[in-house]
Amino acid sequence: MSLLLKNLYVITADETGSIICDGSIGITGKQIDYIGDYYKGIEAKYNRVLDLKGKAAMPGFVNAHNHVAMTLLRNYADDMKLMDWLFNKIFPMEEKLKEEDIYWGSMLGILEMIKSGTTTFCDMYMFMDRTAETVMYSGIKAALGRGLQGDFNDDGNRLKEGLNLYNNYHGKGDGRIRINLAPHSVYTCTPAYLKQITEAARDIDAEIQIHLSETKDEVSQCLEKYKMTPIKVADEVGLLSGKTIAAHCVAVNGEDIDILKSRDVNIVHNPSSNMKLGSGIAPINKMINIGINVALGTDGASSNNNLDMLKEMRFASYLQKCILEDPTVINADEAIKIATINGAKALGFTDTGMLKKGYAADIIIFDINKPRYYPKYNIKSSIVYSSNSSDVETVIVDGKIIMEKGEVLSIDAEKVMYEAQKIARRLTSS
Amino acid sequence: MSLLLKNLYVITADETGSIICDGSIGITGKQIDYIGDYYKGIEAKYNRVLDLKGKAAMPGFVNAHNHVAMTLLRNYADDMKLMDWLFNKIFPMEEKLKEEDIYWGSMLGILEMIKSGTTTFCDMYMFMDRTAETVMYSGIKAALGRGLQGDFNDDGNRLKEGLNLYNNYHGKGDGRIRINLAPHSVYTCTPAYLKQITEAARDIDAEIQIHLSETKDEVSQCLEKYKMTPIKVADEVGLLSGKTIAAHCVAVNGEDIDILKSRDVNIVHNPSSNMKLGSGIAPINKMINIGINVALGTDGASSNNNLDMLKEMRFASYLQKCILEDPTVINADEAIKIATINGAKALGFTDTGMLKKGYAADIIIFDINKPRYYPKYNIKSSIVYSSNSSDVETVIVDGKIIMEKGEVLSIDAEKVMYEAQKIARRLTSS
Repeated sequence: MSLLLKNLYVITADETGSIICDGSIGITGKQIDYIGDYYKGIEAKYNRVLDLKGKAAMPGFVNAHNHVAMTLLRNYADDMKLMDWLFNKIFPMEEKLKEEDIYWGSMLGILEMIKSGTTTFCDMYMFMDRTAETVMYSGIKAALGRGLQGDFNDDGNRLKEGLNLYNNYHGKGDGRIRINLAPHSVYTCTPAYLKQITEAARDIDAEIQIHLSETKDEVSQCLEKYKMTPIKVADEVGLLSGKTIAAHCVAVNGEDIDILKSRDVNIVHNPSSNMKLGSGIAPINKMINIGINVALGTDGASSNNNLDMLKEMRFASYLQKCILEDPTVINADEAIKIATINGAKALGFTDTGMLKKGYAADIIIFDINKPRYYPKYNIKSSIVYSSNSSDVETVIVDGKIIMEKGEVLSIDAEKVMYEAQKIARRLTSS
Repeated sequence: MSLLLKNLYVITADETGSIICDGSIGITGKQIDYIGDYYKGIEAKYNRVLDLKGKAAMPGFVNAHNHVAMTLLRNYADDMKLMDWLFNKIFPMEEKLKEEDIYWGSMLGILEMIKSGTTTFCDMYMFMDRTAETVMYSGIKAALGRGLQGDFNDDGNRLKEGLNLYNNYHGKGDGRIRINLAPHSVYTCTPAYLKQITEAARDIDAEIQIHLSETKDEVSQCLEKYKMTPIKVADEVGLLSGKTIAAHCVAVNGEDIDILKSRDVNIVHNPSSNMKLGSGIAPINKMINIGINVALGTDGASSNNNLDMLKEMRFASYLQKCILEDPTVINADEAIKIATINGAKALGFTDTGMLKKGYAADIIIFDINKPRYYPKYNIKSSIVYSSNSSDVETVIVDGKIIMEKGEVLSIDAEKVMYEAQKIARRLTSS
């Protein structure tokens, strides 16, 4: 199967940062095999041709931190103090979640992500086999890990589940699924358990994802318990490396940042969730400036409350400009990078995140013939600063169209919304 | 003409904050004459009935600070230091703007605002007759003022223009247009001029809108020049009252806040613009807590870069939660208030901003049958935290449908976008 996209603006988001006007993208199999100006006769090389006059393409978004099935708890409890919210609202609801619920919650979140231009996501939760199934089914890409908590003796079963997930799903969907190991955090795992997980991950060469230093309270409790910050604890047990995906990193000191940099750790910034929960602001501009790979995530929908990476990109840019009182930081190019290539790198998808020959054809197409895109001085700025996720009309993953004209082809949206509502009724009925 | 909306969720946004499920809204002429539960036979009282099963209504947004024609400069220059941006990019472009451009720029902005659920806006710019024409034409409501700068001797003509605008347009469109006087700021008007404008406003009982204390630099230059903060200067000349609409109020001290409170000044918070330009954060939670009326605005599209009040509402809420490290502040109810009724109060539209019997029928209707609204635990939270402005499908102002199923009935969108692009080409051609 091969496909030509022609006559559209192409935001390459590659090293050059260039934009091609009236460009063409040729796709053969899973890969981009041509990107550049249109030339006469190019159509003959491809089975299908889409004339996308005046539309704009960019790499699909990589949502690098999520708990996708938590869409089931979206808008259930808002505007509450973190611990009150967690212990009195979220945890009791999670207790009631059954394996089957995770399937429908994942479907709902994936549907929302595809519709808003996300082509790859990272997830940590429970019953992850069901999430993996929905990834297989929907056509999206994902890096998945079974959330691990406790210590090795108590919770050997969870690690076993995590490793089973790896054995059953890593590389599946023709490489669309990657499995990582996912210790929840330093405050929910003992150092011995973190070490065990680290060793298990090394054995299979898997990435590790973890929440690190999300709040000041977490850090001060850790200091009390271990006389070290969570990042230092994670480093001491050997968990930090270029294959570590560390979500949040909000409450970090200078030494923490030095450790993250020296170990090549990938950071995932979650501005909406951090802002909404009042957790603080991760110093991502500083991190980026010293060469740390910073990616972007929405976190779960219960603390965001949606999975919209365009919105997240804008929050990330505006928040740094605001707090540093410097409008030049996290400019449009940087915002696109953290939302695409940096996430792909972090998750281990080495051939995605840019529109470039030889890269996977993970492409989203915007309808920019709308008032908010006018006048058209700068397409990149308009995507980052003026757009709306509903403008994404076509989504391609590994060369396959999974959404066309706003319709996700693989998912019965009505059925998914119906099932999600049925689950919500059950969750709140007793 | 009368109209019944039935079978929909109604977010009243009135003093009770209640939500009516499967509710009805009856409209006769310009006003809401019924709001509440559906009852058998209600249809007979109205000419037209819209069955909006499963959709959600709320009051239209009031965008309380804007320079609508600046849509023409959207995305022209971003990610720049404020003074560099203003002096080297924005001001030179504004020099080239002709009267006719303001017409098309206003049309473009109004089109965008209606499409995203704004039913009333406040504007300060030049050639305001042309903006007033577009307001008349489009069906939206507006509070307009000709921007005034300089001193009385030099710029008597501008004030005359401002008063002519009042004489020609105040109350026009069957009350849809209000005209105010609009001294640009303390740093661009002499105290004598501000006083003159204040007296002129009192004579005609008009509101005054002004930019106040947007940046720290503005305040420190003012302190140097007058030994007073801009707010103190404005107070000294008598400009501050319950009929003053003060945009920004970012760099304010305790005494400033006391003055604003004691004079009943209306504040307009512009979080996106303040964040994007790195100007700082207005202490709106504090202001609200002491009873100051805080409204919400997008500012011009060149520093935002869109006119989307839903996005603005989310920024306002998340930014206060973030900076105060308290997720309970600016909750969903408060966010809706600053985006609706508080703005209406500030601008002098005393019968709009709530869905309530006797109020103007300024109503927006969301299509909430989309993944991001599921599950439906709390419609209000979902509108504030999960929605997307493209979900607004119907807009009613003064009982008249001005947008239906996403189509703005009074404006030829293709023509407006075409003309805006033509102007942009001219502006950048030399």
